[in-house]
Amino acid sequence: MSRDTRTILEEVRSGVLTTEEALLELKQKPFTDIGYAKVDVHRRIRQGVPEIIYGEGKTSQQITGILRALEEAGEDRVLITRLPEATAGQVAEVFPITYHAEARIGIRGDLPEPDVPGTILIATGGTSDIPVAAEAALTAEYLGNRVERLYDVGVAGLHRLLSHVDLIQQASVIIAIAGMEGALASVIGGLAECPVIAVPTSVGYGASFEGLSALLSMMNSCASGVSVVNIDNGFGAAYTASRINHSIRHGGKENS
Amino acid sequence: MSRDTRTILEEVRSGVLTTEEALLELKQKPFTDIGYAKVDVHRRIRQGVPEIIYGEGKTSQQITGILRALEEAGEDRVLITRLPEATAGQVAEVFPITYHAEARIGIRGDLPEPDVPGTILIATGGTSDIPVAAEAALTAEYLGNRVERLYDVGVAGLHRLLSHVDLIQQASVIIAIAGMEGALASVIGGLAECPVIAVPTSVGYGASFEGLSALLSMMNSCASGVSVVNIDNGFGAAYTASRINHSIRHGGKENS
Amino acid sequence: MSRDTRTILEEVRSGVLTTEEALLELKQKPFTDIGYAKVDVHRRIRQGVPEIIYGEGKTSQQITGILRALEEAGEDRVLITRLPEATAGQVAEVFPITYHAEARIGIRGDLPEPDVPGTILIATGGTSDIPVAAEAALTAEYLGNRVERLYDVGVAGLHRLLSHVDLIQQASVIIAIAGMEGALASVIGGLAECPVIAVPTSVGYGASFEGLSALLSMMNSCASGVSVVNIDNGFGAAYTASRINHSIRHGGKENS
Amino acid sequence: MSRDTRTILEEVRSGVLTTEEALLELKQKPFTDIGYAKVDVHRRIRQGVPEIIYGEGKTSQQITGILRALEEAGEDRVLITRLPEATAGQVAEVFPITYHAEARIGIRGDLPEPDVPGTILIATGGTSDIPVAAEAALTAEYLGNRVERLYDVGVAGLHRLLSHVDLIQQASVIIAIAGMEGALASVIGGLAECPVIAVPTSVGYGASFEGLSALLSMMNSCASGVSVVNIDNGFGAAYTASRINHSIRHGGKENS
Amino acid sequence: MSRDTRTILEEVRSGVLTTEEALLELKQKPFTDIGYAKVDVHRRIRQGVPEIIYGEGKTSQQITGILRALEEAGEDRVLITRLPEATAGQVAEVFPITYHAEARIGIRGDLPEPDVPGTILIATGGTSDIPVAAEAALTAEYLGNRVERLYDVGVAGLHRLLSHVDLIQQASVIIAIAGMEGALASVIGGLAECPVIAVPTSVGYGASFEGLSALLSMMNSCASGVSVVNIDNGFGAAYTASRINHSIRHGGKENS
Amino acid sequence: MSRDTRTILEEVRSGVLTTEEALLELKQKPFTDIGYAKVDVHRRIRQGVPEIIYGEGKTSQQITGILRALEEAGEDRVLITRLPEATAGQVAEVFPITYHAEARIGIRGDLPEPDVPGTILIATGGTSDIPVAAEAALTAEYLGNRVERLYDVGVAGLHRLLSHVDLIQQASVIIAIAGMEGALASVIGGLAECPVIAVPTSVGYGASFEGLSALLSMMNSCASGVSVVNIDNGFGAAYTASRINHSIRHGGKENS
Amino acid sequence: MSRDTRTILEEVRSGVLTTEEALLELKQKPFTDIGYAKVDVHRRIRQGVPEIIYGEGKTSQQITGILRALEEAGEDRVLITRLPEATAGQVAEVFPITYHAEARIGIRGDLPEPDVPGTILIATGGTSDIPVAAEAALTAEYLGNRVERLYDVGVAGLHRLLSHVDLIQQASVIIAIAGMEGALASVIGGLAECPVIAVPTSVGYGASFEGLSALLSMMNSCASGVSVVNIDNGFGAAYTASRINHSIRHGGKENS
Amino acid sequence: MSRDTRTILEEVRSGVLTTEEALLELKQKPFTDIGYAKVDVHRRIRQGVPEIIYGEGKTSQQITGILRALEEAGEDRVLITRLPEATAGQVAEVFPITYHAEARIGIRGDLPEPDVPGTILIATGGTSDIPVAAEAALTAEYLGNRVERLYDVGVAGLHRLLSHVDLIQQASVIIAIAGMEGALASVIGGLAECPVIAVPTSVGYGASFEGLSALLSMMNSCASGVSVVNIDNGFGAAYTASRINHSIRHGGKENS
Repeated sequence: MSRDTRTILEEVRSGVLTTEEALLELKQKPFTDIGYAKVDVHRRIRQGVPEIIYGEGKTSQQITGILRALEEAGEDRVLITRLPEATAGQVAEVFPITYHAEARIGIRGDLPEPDVPGTILIATGGTSDIPVAAEAALTAEYLGNRVERLYDVGVAGLHRLLSHVDLIQQASVIIAIAGMEGALASVIGGLAECPVIAVPTSVGYGASFEGLSALLSMMNSCASGVSVVNIDNGFGAAYTASRINHSIRHGGKENS
Repeated sequence: MSRDTRTILEEVRSGVLTTEEALLELKQKPFTDIGYAKVDVHRRIRQGVPEIIYGEGKTSQQITGILRALEEAGEDRVLITRLPEATAGQVAEVFPITYHAEARIGIRGDLPEPDVPGTILIATGGTSDIPVAAEAALTAEYLGNRVERLYDVGVAGLHRLLSHVDLIQQASVIIAIAGMEGALASVIGGLAECPVIAVPTSVGYGASFEGLSALLSMMNSCASGVSVVNIDNGFGAAYTASRINHSIRHGGKENS
Repeated sequence: MSRDTRTILEEVRSGVLTTEEALLELKQKPFTDIGYAKVDVHRRIRQGVPEIIYGEGKTSQQITGILRALEEAGEDRVLITRLPEATAGQVAEVFPITYHAEARIGIRGDLPEPDVPGTILIATGGTSDIPVAAEAALTAEYLGNRVERLYDVGVAGLHRLLSHVDLIQQASVIIAIAGMEGALASVIGGLAECPVIAVPTSVGYGASFEGLSALLSMMNSCASGVSVVNIDNGFGAAYTASRINHSIRHGGKENS
Repeated sequence: MSRDTRTILEEVRSGVLTTEEALLELKQKPFTDIGYAKVDVHRRIRQGVPEIIYGEGKTSQQITGILRALEEAGEDRVLITRLPEATAGQVAEVFPITYHAEARIGIRGDLPEPDVPGTILIATGGTSDIPVAAEAALTAEYLGNRVERLYDVGVAGLHRLLSHVDLIQQASVIIAIAGMEGALASVIGGLAECPVIAVPTSVGYGASFEGLSALLSMMNSCASGVSVVNIDNGFGAAYTASRINHSIRHGGKENS
Repeated sequence: MSRDTRTILEEVRSGVLTTEEALLELKQKPFTDIGYAKVDVHRRIRQGVPEIIYGEGKTSQQITGILRALEEAGEDRVLITRLPEATAGQVAEVFPITYHAEARIGIRGDLPEPDVPGTILIATGGTSDIPVAAEAALTAEYLGNRVERLYDVGVAGLHRLLSHVDLIQQASVIIAIAGMEGALASVIGGLAECPVIAVPTSVGYGASFEGLSALLSMMNSCASGVSVVNIDNGFGAAYTASRINHSIRHGGKENS
Repeated sequence: MSRDTRTILEEVRSGVLTTEEALLELKQKPFTDIGYAKVDVHRRIRQGVPEIIYGEGKTSQQITGILRALEEAGEDRVLITRLPEATAGQVAEVFPITYHAEARIGIRGDLPEPDVPGTILIATGGTSDIPVAAEAALTAEYLGNRVERLYDVGVAGLHRLLSHVDLIQQASVIIAIAGMEGALASVIGGLAECPVIAVPTSVGYGASFEGLSALLSMMNSCASGVSVVNIDNGFGAAYTASRINHSIRHGGKENS
Repeated sequence: MSRDTRTILEEVRSGVLTTEEALLELKQKPFTDIGYAKVDVHRRIRQGVPEIIYGEGKTSQQITGILRALEEAGEDRVLITRLPEATAGQVAEVFPITYHAEARIGIRGDLPEPDVPGTILIATGGTSDIPVAAEAALTAEYLGNRVERLYDVGVAGLHRLLSHVDLIQQASVIIAIAGMEGALASVIGGLAECPVIAVPTSVGYGASFEGLSALLSMMNSCASGVSVVNIDNGFGAAYTASRINHSIRHGGKENS
Repeated sequence: MSRDTRTILEEVRSGVLTTEEALLELKQKPFTDIGYAKVDVHRRIRQGVPEIIYGEGKTSQQITGILRALEEAGEDRVLITRLPEATAGQVAEVFPITYHAEARIGIRGDLPEPDVPGTILIATGGTSDIPVAAEAALTAEYLGNRVERLYDVGVAGLHRLLSHVDLIQQASVIIAIAGMEGALASVIGGLAECPVIAVPTSVGYGASFEGLSALLSMMNSCASGVSVVNIDNGFGAAYTASRINHSIRHGGKENS
């Protein structure tokens, strides 16, 4: 942002822009205002990733409106998370999207090829955690990462996890997804050398309090190197993991 | 209790007791009333264990009063839990007690020899959990059990625990003590074949909420065969473990 | 596990296994990987009990897949807990299972005869707690235990409980199931000499907070010898009780 | 209040009072304003009980100021609850008060003789609950009630309570005081025919959460006829019990 | 209970009963065991009120089974609380009951005439609290009390409450029902001279947390003489109020 | 109220009113009692705003009853908040109302023209917060305010907010509406010079705990000048904002 | 801020500033960086109020450092809130400050005369709430407001509040401060026509949960026009009230 | 671990190790058992970082014992976190350590030079958050990272943060530390392109609930790319940040 301001200021200085034009540009540039949403049409340029739409609580009209604003800005690859199946059907009548029911994700356009060498390992404690893992996996792939899936390796049957220690030690980033007591994050955190993103899930009942138990467990992990995102937030974990995984590439550049 | 009622009823039937005497006996028998406490002087007979005093919130006068009532009933081996050091000093001026500062336990009389063959394994996640483990260990020994201590084997360094799998598999009962995220209970629960009693501790800070995180974690253990007692309740875990360990002996008798 | 490792190491030493074969065996032995689940096909051997499937949140396809993997490993007796009625119907089209609607349990194969002499007493505070008790009772029977049912003996009408003190005193293990204020566990804990597993239920309304009140109550039981499992977790209580009840037999063996 | 308003209005009507005088009287009558407190000097007349001062968080200057305002209004019997020992000492230099350290209560003047025939039974689960019971007992006596104390009758040793069923059935009102799991209220509620006021106490540790466990337990009592006051609120329970106990007398009057 | 035990003991003494018969009678007398419920068929005798059935979570088969057991014991007036409309319909096919939809109460038999002179005043903060008030009012009437209803007098419009101060001052007991911030209990508690039972309701949204806000508010009432029952527990409040209201009559007797 | 009382008192003094008439008027004047509701028919006079009906939990019969009472008092402009669509349809068959589905608001009569010069700015963090904003906006307009809407300006894309700093600095009052972490209130609070009313919304999932996260966030705002209303309470925020905005006009009068 | 940007841009345009100078000015202008703090030396200009220091958790060195930076910017009137008495003593050795112990406030310089005509009424439920009220009163006076204090008018003794209805109806803004059940806010909210800022306090015990009960109560106020600040946040309430009170003056200007 | 197992297996295969020796090595290798602690003496080799001691709850004897075990293993650079000042003094009598009082950190040996090119930016919302930031900064430096400190840039004065956007955009990883409402993480998350680790602090009062408010806020951040560690856990944030920062270097290697 400071660089942009500088450019605009220099154009004002050199007379390319009037003061009024500069003010206007400062205000209008980064998004298109469609009333119920301010669509960030330059996000791919600023943050290296295209716009992502959070689908929950939006009508299909609102979603297609945002897709249209993005299309007009030249953006035709869009990820829509937490998209109810019914809404997806209505959106699909207007824009072609692929809907992944388990992950509740809709994608306009194709998934890209991985653009960094590292791998994001996505591990779950149980079978019931898979929908959250699917959201994470698709998001990570959409953001250009290679993904490895390792499901149902909860700590109550430690041998299932220990027989895949190689995957844990080769990953660039690990996303550890678990409900109930959420102990998976600590055990993986103790075995891994890379950053671990923990995702508590709402899987469980009674005193799991819809994921609170796993969340607290992960916040208190006795393993260092573990940080946590919101309950069931597979998307957020993947976004963070992708930032880390892509930092590695940038780091490579800085070293040269 | 039903058996006692039967005996009393039969003595009424046979004229050994009058109705009034029977009523009196039903009322007065099991305890001595010293006003601020109803001291259970027949507990060793009814439940196989002598009286145990919960020391917290009691004055030294109250504790010595209870000790005196027990002494008059012929009971000179008593365990006092959660006994503040200052109170212990005051009690010791009246009755000889041994005070274990780390466990905050005072004992009148000697620790008995184990009276059952099995072993109770007491494991902790960290060094800071040792005071709770000490309370559990002394209680278990006081109740006639053989105890094995295994400290600082938290799941973040899994090799510390895995190198003692033999202890886990040879124990009759295991007490798993951990604060923070409390994952130790699940991992031990998955490795053990015997009952596991989990004790959450208040070790930790921030979102550990003084043991709540570990408690919820243990309640939601994905490992079956784990049950939980109150935060920092080393005594209660040992009492339960002793009941189980002594059931084994009884079981042995029933099989013969 | 340490014993197995030793065997494998000795076979490597003696040349029976190559290093690669040993690694392979260490990894593949205890489970069959079917992608969304790592099925523990050797559990009966390692822990003495066959595999149990947690049905909630699994599709019928996932459950039949796990049943098939178990069948291929020679296991044709399987317990499925928290199985929604609709899913049960879909599973039943592929594998013959008996569905117990009140307990939400599906069983493939027959319930075995009790294989230990002791009895597990299952008591409830009210009529509304019976579904949890049914889950516990079927699980305990499935695991080879004799079960006694004692329903609707909540502490507000103490005479209902006191008239069955004999059952309480003859049991090997007691499962005390109650919602609302959960006081049943404390009262039974004070009357019993055997271990008591308390199960809080979500029965109640308002400040019961879906079982939290009963859970806290049971965690704070003033009766020693009580440990607690998750809200509505009849299965977990029965599993723990069965471990204790079967320890008794093992204990008998060790004494000989 | 409506009756008072009527009187004042009638005096306005008849010319005894001017409008301004009436407004003044409506405003000033029921209390003396000493800035930091509005002292209710007519409470004995309106509600039948003299003023009671809540001592916590008040300086000794504030308390003596209130005592002085009451004295000027002719009130020389005052109860001060939750009075810290140090403050009590400072107040005692100005006004003669009797300080009850266990109950943290200061009393100016003498305790009255009981002015109603019924008895308030005050029962506690344990010895550590006695300070709350002492606050309740002194308050009830200050308000003119006969009090019976029954301490350390928690449900884990049911025989201690059952041997006093006669006290429970003869009381006019019962105050059941317990910490930890608070089950005492339900058991007494099931045995009693009179109203039961339950007082949760902060006795306990860990998951007792400073009385929350007992409070929820008592709110969810499966026994009907139990109502609850705040944690450690011995005063409030006694005040309510006294209202009930004195209603009985009034009731007697209404019947005649 | 102690009186019954005495009678039985005396009959044993005199040979009227054998020991075995006495034991049998002690066990079987106060209830009929129908498996899923222990029906208290002598409650009218012991506590002066007929049996009341808590309908929630019970099948219509279970409810009609209990009604039949009561009928066989000669009891044909029964109150069923929290009875879902559908269940009520099924029960009504077997036993004639009157269903009050707003209160979710079913009644077998007629409401009795008031059998005590006092009045129970039932006040609500808003219109939405009326279902809870209806449950309280019908319960109180079923238990033989005269009831006065005062609805929608919440403290935000104080004049609505103040214009009925006469009702507040003439009541024997007041039930104050309010959701949201629950301030009604404190204001009424300050105006009344009789006992006040406060009922928090789940009316509200957001930070009312389904009645928790009102519950805490009422527990912390700055007005003395207020005690609290569970959220939405109109039944419990009425039961307690009836006990108090009937104490008044008994008190009258004791005074003579 | 004191002014009214004075007037009535003076009329009593001068003989215009009898005492009985005065009492009657004090009681009956401010509302019409229709049993289930005390309708405040003089609110427009006392508080400057017409009656507003809280629709949730009321039947259509109750709502039309209140509308009729208001109509009889000459009030034909009424706002009904939290009105379910189905109920709205039933009400509309009796009284003409306009229903705004997104805001869940029904309005009888027309929206008035703004009667004060200032503007209330209503800002939301996201698109999903718009229903709460709509409730606020309609309420504010109904109460005679000019409203400016600024939607989807959450802090994660700060440029969207910063490009509208002019709106923030020109507003008389700002309503900041946000779910999830609720940071919008703090950022606006730091930029604004006028009062800011923060409304947490239940938008979010997992650890948002249905708005609790945003509520706590806003309560702890590091920006001074921010006060908070209940979760999703767009109505309350608008009502408060309108009071402030109308204070400005009154202030103007006082200055002249 | 947008206006400042415009000025700077215009000076760049006209050549008065170079691009680099403009960037520098944009960065450095509004605060002085002293490492551990960024002191806002232009706040009086931007927001119309001088800097205020939050004293808690700051060393006396940090506070005097900030005072020095403000002095260098020409600011010699500073309010320091939540200033521990010991720290105040240390600060007073360097800068002359007046310390108000009850309010825990230190003030450098004199309190100004009121600069607006309206009055802020500060009411408390009890005597123990006065420290919070004192913080609010001093803050309001420091910010140029006239303050009226009305203490100990809690709703349990309604006549104390009702006798001051005139103060409530003449205030420009009201700050309602109460602990325990916090009902004061609702009652005042129903009587007032001006905005009401509610401050929950931590006064109380047990289920007051250190102010949580009052906070929830106030958030759920059934009176419209009430907004809430953090527990014990007298400062924040006064700051908000002052903004509203000063809006009135501005409003007056806009009307002319 | 799998690589180590392979090596040991191959040495068994080749006869270099006997089976017993291999088992012994597998067990003893990674730590030294000193009873109360299992000291991880090979951690520098396995995870690239030397051992770190959590000081809280450990006696000085325990800490010097661990330091001695590490010294014997050749490790003379050790970080001790959460070390109370008194304990530090006692440790310093045995081993030379440098104590940083604000961060509560003791360090044996020197801080190393940075061994990776990237920078970790540590930002705080206020001055009171600095102790947590100091813990993070020292930890990060101890682990070989370059650190930039940016303190007191909370969102209520946005210009303080915006004037340092360059630091935000140049960092490799950012640690955002804030108490109260914790909004700093979201605002930085929206401005940054690198991973952001959020640390809630216990700074605040009332409804901050000792950091819970900030924790929930950060978990719900509307900015993607933010993950969270425990309240006040500066150490954990720095450890995670260092892992990410060192991944960058490894990434560089993988690219070549």
